Amino acid sequence: MESAVSHLIEPRTLKGFRDFLPEVMLVRERLMETARRVFRSYGFSPIDTPALEYAEILTGKGGEESDKQLFRFKDGGERDIALRFDLTVPLARFAAQHSSALGMPFKRYHIAPVWRGENTQRGRYREFIQCDFDTIGTESNSADIETLLVIHDLLIGLGFERFTIRVNNRLILNGVLSFLGLTDKTVGVLRAIDKLPKIGEDGVLAEMVDKVGTTIDQAKQVLLTVGPQTDLDSLESRFAGNESVLMGVSRLRQLFSAAATAGIPSDRIELDVSIARGLDYYTGTIYETFLTDLPGIGSICSGGRYDNLAGLFTKERLPGVGASLGLDRLLAAMEELKLLGTEATPAPVLMTQFDESRLGDYLRVARALRAAGIGTEVFPDAKKLGKQLQYADRKGFRIALIAGSDEFAKGVWQIKSLAKGTTVTVSEGELVNSITEILSAS
Amino acid sequence: MESAVSHLIEPRTLKGFRDFLPEVMLVRERLMETARRVFRSYGFSPIDTPALEYAEILTGKGGEESDKQLFRFKDGGERDIALRFDLTVPLARFAAQHSSALGMPFKRYHIAPVWRGENTQRGRYREFIQCDFDTIGTESNSADIETLLVIHDLLIGLGFERFTIRVNNRLILNGVLSFLGLTDKTVGVLRAIDKLPKIGEDGVLAEMVDKVGTTIDQAKQVLLTVGPQTDLDSLESRFAGNESVLMGVSRLRQLFSAAATAGIPSDRIELDVSIARGLDYYTGTIYETFLTDLPGIGSICSGGRYDNLAGLFTKERLPGVGASLGLDRLLAAMEELKLLGTEATPAPVLMTQFDESRLGDYLRVARALRAAGIGTEVFPDAKKLGKQLQYADRKGFRIALIAGSDEFAKGVWQIKSLAKGTTVTVSEGELVNSITEILSAS
Repeated sequence: MESAVSHLIEPRTLKGFRDFLPEVMLVRERLMETARRVFRSYGFSPIDTPALEYAEILTGKGGEESDKQLFRFKDGGERDIALRFDLTVPLARFAAQHSSALGMPFKRYHIAPVWRGENTQRGRYREFIQCDFDTIGTESNSADIETLLVIHDLLIGLGFERFTIRVNNRLILNGVLSFLGLTDKTVGVLRAIDKLPKIGEDGVLAEMVDKVGTTIDQAKQVLLTVGPQTDLDSLESRFAGNESVLMGVSRLRQLFSAAATAGIPSDRIELDVSIARGLDYYTGTIYETFLTDLPGIGSICSGGRYDNLAGLFTKERLPGVGASLGLDRLLAAMEELKLLGTEATPAPVLMTQFDESRLGDYLRVARALRAAGIGTEVFPDAKKLGKQLQYADRKGFRIALIAGSDEFAKGVWQIKSLAKGTTVTVSEGELVNSITEILSAS
Repeated sequence: MESAVSHLIEPRTLKGFRDFLPEVMLVRERLMETARRVFRSYGFSPIDTPALEYAEILTGKGGEESDKQLFRFKDGGERDIALRFDLTVPLARFAAQHSSALGMPFKRYHIAPVWRGENTQRGRYREFIQCDFDTIGTESNSADIETLLVIHDLLIGLGFERFTIRVNNRLILNGVLSFLGLTDKTVGVLRAIDKLPKIGEDGVLAEMVDKVGTTIDQAKQVLLTVGPQTDLDSLESRFAGNESVLMGVSRLRQLFSAAATAGIPSDRIELDVSIARGLDYYTGTIYETFLTDLPGIGSICSGGRYDNLAGLFTKERLPGVGASLGLDRLLAAMEELKLLGTEATPAPVLMTQFDESRLGDYLRVARALRAAGIGTEVFPDAKKLGKQLQYADRKGFRIALIAGSDEFAKGVWQIKSLAKGTTVTVSEGELVNSITEILSAS
């Protein structure tokens, strides 16, 4: 063992965990900043909750898949504690604990890491950032429609133009199953429908009949309903007597209409009666978002309306609606597809050091550039200029500034555009304008 | 037990942990955004590392105080793991693991939570955000001076005008102790000096003589050196033959001079030969920062230069310099002193709903305001206007917008300034300008 000889500890991360180097972290921070900006513009407020909670808070009724994935342990005081596995359970606990201080309706966003000890797959990690927003304390369809607008404006803010938000309302599926006499087979039918993209219509039909125990006719009716040929008009006429279907259709109709008035292009929203997203939790509108150019990564922003957020913690009924952006999954996909930049610096300008005795002046001018909003790094050593320019290239700076005794005598600076390789010489007073011009041109 | 009757789980956080409600979290996010902006403007790049690491990485040589505070446990695969207790050890592991990909010098910032199972005191929590920046891979004093500038510009960015950055250089203390023949008593002497603010000069004198075993003369010389009457000139003349003292003085002299040239007011930097900050780690320049109006919270931005960051993990020597902002401690102090705002919303404008049938129009105009940079929340229900205005007051909105069928017929909007109670009516086309005017006036 190397470490036995050298007494060094091998620097490594745990399986399923990763470091973020500047090239990727710069993009990750940009994604988070965009999300914060969009959420805030809609009046969602930030909150934060502890990474560690009592295990009983996180496991709730227990027995769920997520329980097995918990990083759970005893602390120094023998408390049974665990790392949160999502931001929804902490929100439920938080809302129950602070509801009178918060006041309803309450709109919050929460961007924070969560931990799941699940088997690691490509692009899946045991630690990842969740990026959730929710409106709680109201049943109004206005909040459902706003959720759609937030998802839309978030995707636009992140730089995507080609995407589709698929919407559904669980009231429709519930009503259809009730209409067909399949209410007691809801779970099995929804499980079968979920497999539609994988096993096709015939597979789903077979599963409903063989495993779930529907009749052929019932199964065909279900498939017809969730198929792409279904629209709100056809649902309304086929299930005219069913209040649940009609309510679902009515809320979706209002959603499509208000979203159009609010300026959302109609080709970015699509009815998809087949999406259910989890069997128990959602009770109303459902959202899934697919990037046209990255279909393989699945829905990157999903959510829906729920009847009661915090029933485990309080008798106060808290209905709400929200969605979650799969920020780290999006980042991993962009990384794999080489869609990330190669810059390893947040500053566009590197000020080289040529004459060590003028360090104060280098620092003074760099501060003046920063005050004008131009990020500027000062190279820390008066090494050979070639070395400093090599560093600038490697890190992805766009401009290098050079001044030695000649330039200081004349009160001028050389501005080197690193992409073009061209150099101009300007007076100190012109520096900000010249740099701004070069940066905005490239 | 209540929960036995109602089957409810009591919503609570673990001792030493806390929730952040919007009023505080809005300020916390502003502090973090300011730190990111300042760090980036100096060319520091963001990185991130996992919250969980192998315990051997975090404990290193072991036996330190921090080991006892670790949240440490076995994961599902029986690995001995723990939550990070600072961002310095993860940086050391990170730098050793990725040094060839990073390239030196490397400047990074890292703003992330850390966990310590320490006894909870006022304003101390078991989970808090650390906010670190470091320049590694260079011994140049330029990096030390820049660290001072970053601390200064960070404090200014955070809204403070009255603060002092106290600086020292460990080379001075080391040289003085060597000069006095006390090198083998360094740890004891530094421990005694650290208590100067608590037990006074007589107490420190007594401790050095009685516990550390110095002579009275040696102890008096030490006290004279670390006292406020000491300046760089007097150090230089008193310890003229000592290379370590002279090197420390020379680096500090360059620091004061370059900082002055770079525009830092001289009354914000102060020599304090008594500060040592930890006994082993720092080897050069030392920084502590005190707010004139909040002296009780101690130094809120501290750091220094170190010879070798990652000796536990690599043979490559990585000297560096950096500092850490006590962001959550600052926040807790501001909270206690009622220096935080009372707004619970990031958006200044609440659009009320008066006529439910115009929901699409409310959403459309709200989106137009957001596109102009004006954060706008749409109230989700067409409740009585009084209720909606009450909500606006409570959350701290500054403007309420009102339009019913009359206004829609005329194409106008009522803008209610919630602080003044005044209302003006403007056309839809004038909305952005009128709101911008009202917001910038108040």
